[in-house]
Amino acid sequence: MGMIGGGPGAFIGPVHRIAAELDREIELVAGAFSSDAGRSRAAAEAYRIDPERGYPDVAAMLEAERARPDGIDFVSVVTPNHNHLASAKAALAAGVPVISDKPMTATLDEARELAAVLGRTPVPYALTFTYTGYPLVREMRERIAAGALGTIRKVVVEYPQGWLAGEAEGKQAEWRVDPARAGAGGCIGDIGVHAFNLAEFVTGLAVTEVLPDLAAVVPGRALDDDCTVLLRFQGGARGVLLASQIEVGELNGLRIRVYGETGGMIWRQESPNAFTWHRLDGTTELVRAGDASLGENATALTRIPGGHPEGYLEAFANLYRDFATVLRGGRAPMLPGLTEGLRSMVFIDTCVRASAEGACWTELTL
Amino acid sequence: MGMIGGGPGAFIGPVHRIAAELDREIELVAGAFSSDAGRSRAAAEAYRIDPERGYPDVAAMLEAERARPDGIDFVSVVTPNHNHLASAKAALAAGVPVISDKPMTATLDEARELAAVLGRTPVPYALTFTYTGYPLVREMRERIAAGALGTIRKVVVEYPQGWLAGEAEGKQAEWRVDPARAGAGGCIGDIGVHAFNLAEFVTGLAVTEVLPDLAAVVPGRALDDDCTVLLRFQGGARGVLLASQIEVGELNGLRIRVYGETGGMIWRQESPNAFTWHRLDGTTELVRAGDASLGENATALTRIPGGHPEGYLEAFANLYRDFATVLRGGRAPMLPGLTEGLRSMVFIDTCVRASAEGACWTELTL
Amino acid sequence: MGMIGGGPGAFIGPVHRIAAELDREIELVAGAFSSDAGRSRAAAEAYRIDPERGYPDVAAMLEAERARPDGIDFVSVVTPNHNHLASAKAALAAGVPVISDKPMTATLDEARELAAVLGRTPVPYALTFTYTGYPLVREMRERIAAGALGTIRKVVVEYPQGWLAGEAEGKQAEWRVDPARAGAGGCIGDIGVHAFNLAEFVTGLAVTEVLPDLAAVVPGRALDDDCTVLLRFQGGARGVLLASQIEVGELNGLRIRVYGETGGMIWRQESPNAFTWHRLDGTTELVRAGDASLGENATALTRIPGGHPEGYLEAFANLYRDFATVLRGGRAPMLPGLTEGLRSMVFIDTCVRASAEGACWTELTL
Amino acid sequence: MGMIGGGPGAFIGPVHRIAAELDREIELVAGAFSSDAGRSRAAAEAYRIDPERGYPDVAAMLEAERARPDGIDFVSVVTPNHNHLASAKAALAAGVPVISDKPMTATLDEARELAAVLGRTPVPYALTFTYTGYPLVREMRERIAAGALGTIRKVVVEYPQGWLAGEAEGKQAEWRVDPARAGAGGCIGDIGVHAFNLAEFVTGLAVTEVLPDLAAVVPGRALDDDCTVLLRFQGGARGVLLASQIEVGELNGLRIRVYGETGGMIWRQESPNAFTWHRLDGTTELVRAGDASLGENATALTRIPGGHPEGYLEAFANLYRDFATVLRGGRAPMLPGLTEGLRSMVFIDTCVRASAEGACWTELTL
Repeated sequence: MGMIGGGPGAFIGPVHRIAAELDREIELVAGAFSSDAGRSRAAAEAYRIDPERGYPDVAAMLEAERARPDGIDFVSVVTPNHNHLASAKAALAAGVPVISDKPMTATLDEARELAAVLGRTPVPYALTFTYTGYPLVREMRERIAAGALGTIRKVVVEYPQGWLAGEAEGKQAEWRVDPARAGAGGCIGDIGVHAFNLAEFVTGLAVTEVLPDLAAVVPGRALDDDCTVLLRFQGGARGVLLASQIEVGELNGLRIRVYGETGGMIWRQESPNAFTWHRLDGTTELVRAGDASLGENATALTRIPGGHPEGYLEAFANLYRDFATVLRGGRAPMLPGLTEGLRSMVFIDTCVRASAEGACWTELTL
Repeated sequence: MGMIGGGPGAFIGPVHRIAAELDREIELVAGAFSSDAGRSRAAAEAYRIDPERGYPDVAAMLEAERARPDGIDFVSVVTPNHNHLASAKAALAAGVPVISDKPMTATLDEARELAAVLGRTPVPYALTFTYTGYPLVREMRERIAAGALGTIRKVVVEYPQGWLAGEAEGKQAEWRVDPARAGAGGCIGDIGVHAFNLAEFVTGLAVTEVLPDLAAVVPGRALDDDCTVLLRFQGGARGVLLASQIEVGELNGLRIRVYGETGGMIWRQESPNAFTWHRLDGTTELVRAGDASLGENATALTRIPGGHPEGYLEAFANLYRDFATVLRGGRAPMLPGLTEGLRSMVFIDTCVRASAEGACWTELTL
Repeated sequence: MGMIGGGPGAFIGPVHRIAAELDREIELVAGAFSSDAGRSRAAAEAYRIDPERGYPDVAAMLEAERARPDGIDFVSVVTPNHNHLASAKAALAAGVPVISDKPMTATLDEARELAAVLGRTPVPYALTFTYTGYPLVREMRERIAAGALGTIRKVVVEYPQGWLAGEAEGKQAEWRVDPARAGAGGCIGDIGVHAFNLAEFVTGLAVTEVLPDLAAVVPGRALDDDCTVLLRFQGGARGVLLASQIEVGELNGLRIRVYGETGGMIWRQESPNAFTWHRLDGTTELVRAGDASLGENATALTRIPGGHPEGYLEAFANLYRDFATVLRGGRAPMLPGLTEGLRSMVFIDTCVRASAEGACWTELTL
Repeated sequence: MGMIGGGPGAFIGPVHRIAAELDREIELVAGAFSSDAGRSRAAAEAYRIDPERGYPDVAAMLEAERARPDGIDFVSVVTPNHNHLASAKAALAAGVPVISDKPMTATLDEARELAAVLGRTPVPYALTFTYTGYPLVREMRERIAAGALGTIRKVVVEYPQGWLAGEAEGKQAEWRVDPARAGAGGCIGDIGVHAFNLAEFVTGLAVTEVLPDLAAVVPGRALDDDCTVLLRFQGGARGVLLASQIEVGELNGLRIRVYGETGGMIWRQESPNAFTWHRLDGTTELVRAGDASLGENATALTRIPGGHPEGYLEAFANLYRDFATVLRGGRAPMLPGLTEGLRSMVFIDTCVRASAEGACWTELTL
């Protein structure tokens, strides 16, 4: 694996590295970690890889690695959003598979451009919508698809955070509140889109209409930091998406509740190894990692016995495990890619535009 | 106390009786429990009061009780919504104080009529917005008023239930889904209005605008059973109100989260004797009933040592304790009355109308 | 009902009054609230009953009330432990039924004396082991009796408190650390005995042997304030009982876990309206108040719909409801009385003596 | 790193591999994974390392690796308990550092033999008492050492599991119930010892006396599967240790509660990224991963922002990170080693012997 981005001070680069390598199917061996040649070499050293393979730019990495017998097999894109498109295009043009951090690109136009590229190439492309990697999330999806809740009527998905309630300080905060680097969406693009993706993933239903209420609450901020979006799903199910970065004290409280005609299910990322399943007859089951009742998929993705907590890094690693399966020619039907990426960009774009216009219900048009 | 409504099969009548009598300041001695004379007498017997004082109608009760030296001092109105207005008016006209179950009346027009009556009389009138009786809810209100969270930015208030996810069976369910008895609002009037009231109570801020998304999800239902309402508060704080009666497995999960510039607070009715207080510096305090740090108000309303759970009946009793204070000539500034009642009726009416019209943001106009 | 004890500053007197009256089957009309005549009259006034019926001693109350057509039907004993025996004997001798706060008496010798009295009279006698009044506790008992867990193997019952971690201040604390008023047991008699009773109640099994480890942790204290007791139950099940009053921050965290060959159940008083039921096949059910799956007993004892929290006062009231049933000639098989009282006194006495002697396993001998 | 044990079907081998490699300071390159040559090669292939470096025995590995310029720098011992001694001795004799799964050895005699060896060599030796690697556990230790709770009075440490409630099936279960492979202790050696180690680690106090109550509850089992041990710590603090493998439904619920004169702290492995801190003044703080108030140690050991759950693998990796620090010549004062290993063996041995003899309080003698 070659990494694009992930240099000094990055949060998500080391996360991708750990996730990729957790199952020993993948090894980080090169990177264009920074556009500054010296910093990229330094990053290579920090990752304990050959400093020669810390390249100053993507083109240099692709060219040099192609020439090596032990060159990289794919790239992982972990830059700020505004470099996602160029990075992915360069790799795809060279025939190198891409796994990219979300969102797909900084803008919808860019996403459409990338989609066009992907439409013309068979080279694999995947997106790390991390939360779809949790075994219990996948179990929910499978049970819901199998009819555990009957027809879906209502979805409430929330992603509360509080870390941007004060001034945005530090490298991680700064680019997220800067339209030039983050794109048109702030909170909606950073975490709202995770909630959107999770809702579609778990229910198997597409969102067809949105009514967004976005705002920049902290004075002087250019991008939204607090979002509520009313949802309609295909088939008529109703939904609400709440995402915020100004809710003081909230850490990373992604959670989803899905209700159908005959049952309800509730999952929370802060306690990710279980979900609650309510049935219309009044009984409630607590489904836990390691339970014999879990399907093959969830069982295969659980590395240690139930009760030993597995978390975010393991969920992330499950996406890389899927990607390795794809690279070996296998199938990984739950791995997010072009479709999920484009849908999420349409979601961000529609929410930002409709909210700016004060529009009411607005269709999501791919 | 004389009760109006609360006859055989009623849920809320016995609750009011227990709540009223819990502190031994009030005793149920009479009632117009049913419009059927026999059933009213039977109800009196079931409550173990003199069957003679089980009257066939309100007028009879008011007249007979007035003639007794030990006659009632006030009435408690616990009928279905469509009888709230007539009951309250009759009592007030006779100079008898009224404590009424919410909502104030079945329709906004009726509420305005009752408000006009109340404007012309000094007779006390109160409304049992039950959840404002929880000691920890009052503690939150006081701390927020004292600046514990700084300027309020965001409020999320939820009232999920699931008991109307199937067919509406039983006396309790049937009148709630019948516009003739419940009024124009279904879920929004039954529980959404509790959430609305709680949000205004805790924050001390008035809601100024709403964007309602109401629906009757269960096929064939005439009234809404699932509601989302976007909110704006005076001063600009943003909010979301979620109420539903079709979320399978949810019992009575009223909860509220309030976030300001410098902190956040979270309270849940299903664990009512504590709330969480997050501060901007990253620390989190768990505030519990019985803590020495609690204010006088919360301490006075707690009957037993911390850790012995107090619940819904005790919260309800706190409202009756307040009402008894008022009847004795004292002050009970947190007891809901005309203002809260009228605001809540405007809220219901605006949500129902605006949602029917597909309107977007709509002002709450008193 | 006439009350013995429960005068000014008492905690448990008002609790008994509320519990007794909650269902309107019982009314407090008299009391020997204090051995000081003036204070007893004052207490009567505070309870809003006729001051004439605030008597200076038990004998006076029994005599005067017997002479009244509306005299008391039974007494409730809520004094500190050292007056339990005399109070109960006086009432029983007058043919007046007794419901008493636990423990039965201050010492085992006294308990045997009372047992002898009870053996010679048909007058009803009951003990308020409060926690057996929780609907979900009774549901556990019934399900376990019906075989839900198979043969019981292990019981862990805990009652952590922290309020005596510092100096014992206030009326409630002072008598509990004074052997002359509390009896030989401190923590073991105040709360350990509740845990003991709960364990026997829920499992339906008698404790046959104990290995107690009691200590007075706070310097200068004469009675134990921290207790661990290893248990053996009839049939061989193993157990552990933990009770403490010096665990800073613990409020009233009574909880019990029961494990058998085919399942486990967990209940916590701080969240009393649910328990968890684990099955050997790996599934876990959350059983909640209001569930349709609950038995008749638990359903009958639940006053309000599921999700509206019911707590300690309602559990306490369920014992008085049972007692009223007995007074009317009915049966209340779950209501604790002589047997439970005597067993608990043997438990306290054995633990205190064996611990003082440094004994190891010691039989409970009735 | 070279691994000893960890071949096909092993649970803990892959866990050590992931933990060791998580921070990219260590790489698994060789192993004596099985005493069967073919299986050892196969295991090497499964781990994706050179099959040549899958050796049939420890001696062969040590010799061959010593001859390589890129040979192993240390070994990780992950065999069943009865091979811990021989494996560690062989490596130490060759001057190769050892990190070993717990317990130190199968018996106390073996542990004393290993201690003697370690007393004569400066070669590093560490033991993976995993739970000491949790950042919040270390934070508790530091705060307690700094006086956050005052003098410690009481410790309750529990490790409930249920997976051996039925027949012991599967490779993991079988050796644990076999004295020849597990040693004299069953549950006490497998998980009780973790609880013991955690209690000493968090409090900084040594256990001086024990009163063990061990039993083999499942019929036909040779080793204990359910343990309660009363504890005394230096300075007089009282304690209770509960460990069980027959509590149906319990997964891996290690938890510890520590109470001192001025406060209490509670941590649970099933929610490892937070602990509760009660203070004598009645306030309660919830301390969470990522809080600014955390010390350097806990902060350094947290890889991702607060709210993204970290779990067991990350805690395990923290021990390997410490070990890498030691190998580079640095200090890792919290890393368990000889002292903790020997103490834990004395604990197991004393509990097994004293329980078999029906002894009461028994000193822990090193």
